[in-house]
Amino acid sequence: MTIIVDGMGGDHAPVEILKGCAAAVEELGVKIIVTGPEDMLKKTMEDHDISDENIEIRHADEIITMEDEPGCVLKAKRNSSMGLAFDLLKNGEADAMVSAGNSGAVLAGGTLIVKRIPGVKRAAFAPVLPAGDKKVMLIDSGANEVCTPEYLDQFGTMGAIYMKHMDFCDTPKVGLLNNGTEECKGTQLHQDAHKLMKENNAYDFVGNVEARGVFDGVCDVLVADGFSGNVLLKAVEGTALYMMKIMKEALTSSLFSTILTGMLKPKLRKMKKKLDYTEEGGAVLLGICKPIVKAHGSSNAKAFKNAIRQAADFAESHAVEAITEQLQKQKETPNA
Amino acid sequence: MTIIVDGMGGDHAPVEILKGCAAAVEELGVKIIVTGPEDMLKKTMEDHDISDENIEIRHADEIITMEDEPGCVLKAKRNSSMGLAFDLLKNGEADAMVSAGNSGAVLAGGTLIVKRIPGVKRAAFAPVLPAGDKKVMLIDSGANEVCTPEYLDQFGTMGAIYMKHMDFCDTPKVGLLNNGTEECKGTQLHQDAHKLMKENNAYDFVGNVEARGVFDGVCDVLVADGFSGNVLLKAVEGTALYMMKIMKEALTSSLFSTILTGMLKPKLRKMKKKLDYTEEGGAVLLGICKPIVKAHGSSNAKAFKNAIRQAADFAESHAVEAITEQLQKQKETPNA
Repeated sequence: MTIIVDGMGGDHAPVEILKGCAAAVEELGVKIIVTGPEDMLKKTMEDHDISDENIEIRHADEIITMEDEPGCVLKAKRNSSMGLAFDLLKNGEADAMVSAGNSGAVLAGGTLIVKRIPGVKRAAFAPVLPAGDKKVMLIDSGANEVCTPEYLDQFGTMGAIYMKHMDFCDTPKVGLLNNGTEECKGTQLHQDAHKLMKENNAYDFVGNVEARGVFDGVCDVLVADGFSGNVLLKAVEGTALYMMKIMKEALTSSLFSTILTGMLKPKLRKMKKKLDYTEEGGAVLLGICKPIVKAHGSSNAKAFKNAIRQAADFAESHAVEAITEQLQKQKETPNA
Repeated sequence: MTIIVDGMGGDHAPVEILKGCAAAVEELGVKIIVTGPEDMLKKTMEDHDISDENIEIRHADEIITMEDEPGCVLKAKRNSSMGLAFDLLKNGEADAMVSAGNSGAVLAGGTLIVKRIPGVKRAAFAPVLPAGDKKVMLIDSGANEVCTPEYLDQFGTMGAIYMKHMDFCDTPKVGLLNNGTEECKGTQLHQDAHKLMKENNAYDFVGNVEARGVFDGVCDVLVADGFSGNVLLKAVEGTALYMMKIMKEALTSSLFSTILTGMLKPKLRKMKKKLDYTEEGGAVLLGICKPIVKAHGSSNAKAFKNAIRQAADFAESHAVEAITEQLQKQKETPNA
């Protein structure tokens, strides 16, 4: 299994990215191709004593920043760490790709360099959120601000196939993010999408789901337009971070409570792990011909290693092939 | 100060509602008019030993359930506890009203019985969320699934006036909920609203704010279309409840940790209070001629008492009068 890594994407590139790569080689037995300025990457590995075993560097001059226009990955900055990574993935030099860089550029490169699976209307970012003993995929979390009912229906198809092939559940339940559970709820988009999804036999539709339903175990795949999916994801992240902060303040506000809290550390660590969405990796870019994972921009080595694991699992799951087959089948026999 | 209370709204009506009323009379010195089936309300007060001091009951036969069509409050169920409450408010028998009942019916009754402030395009539900040492108003949290740029701009005007008149801040900062902070972000609605809000001199616009910004202190009023505002609110509630559950599980998973946690109880209670949005009351229905508060459907006595306090403060703040004046001024001199 070979994974291509954009060596210069994310807030902590390249050092945390390279550390994550080395950890992935050691723990997962994968081979890594890292793209980026060769001298800089080599020097970083030497300076931080990062093993280069099974890590191959491919030189790319440029770097795509968070401020760059997404489209630059296609032409102006094709010879960037991210642009080269897409080209290598497209040319079959690896099984999957991971980048913690500019989300818009990841979407543009995935869609226009690697290309969509035939029949896919739009690719979508789909993180998997920890929700108690379950995992819930949120699709789309921000790739498509404006959606049609057909896009949402297809997100349901792709999400259900991914969750099943990743062995997260046998018969994924698919819900539609809405502002109430009644059928008539939401905007015209949501009402029309509801109808399409209800008629689709490719997955088990459980109807409308409210935002708080993410944690209720009512569905395995939560379909959303990219705008409200983005609001949901960032609200969950923001609330979780805020609560952790308030909790830390409360539990260390006196010497006595700090000592007691110190004794509870193993429990608190276990709890933190349960809530840590970077344990799951990043967001997969679903609908593209090859497995692509967008790691969180703030990824440290551990989070990035988890994103590499997710990319390897994604490639091994053959979810891309299964989506390709399903869409081919739906093209031949609508409502299949 | 007299507050009208819909005695039959909410999951725990009438007992928790009546307990909340008695607590409000005692703690806040307000007078309460409760609407609902007289015999039932009287019997509940006797059975639960709830003081009737300064609580007047006005008889209404019917009850609006959560399943009822919102419009029923106008005709078919006008003689319900909620319908009568709206009529009494409209006729000037009280300074403000509180209901924990059917949100759609509260919106319909407020808009069509009590009526909107002249110039108000749409009324909006606006809860105030605790965010550290700040309070942040989310407007709209679900009254208007579909909005125009003009509605959003006006939500900013109304929200800023409310926050200032309630003494929550001197110069409220108004943000627009979006999927990124750059000006160009969001759907056409959000881009157009951004332009209008930037030009509006009635409030201090700080630009686009992401969902996680609720807790960052970047704004005092977060303007949202009702669909994504609803997603945000429910995601925050859902995440907070989920985290409390995980925390409780972690901290009581052994006898040792349960004992330690018991010793930390005062700290944990303080933390819980900081996170408890019912401390702030409910959601005000902003844009109506009289102060109306929609209490949470699951309100217990304490949450309902807080909603009564919020209604009394709302009436005392004269925010309704200030909004009326500002809209009159804007009508005479656009961009005032």
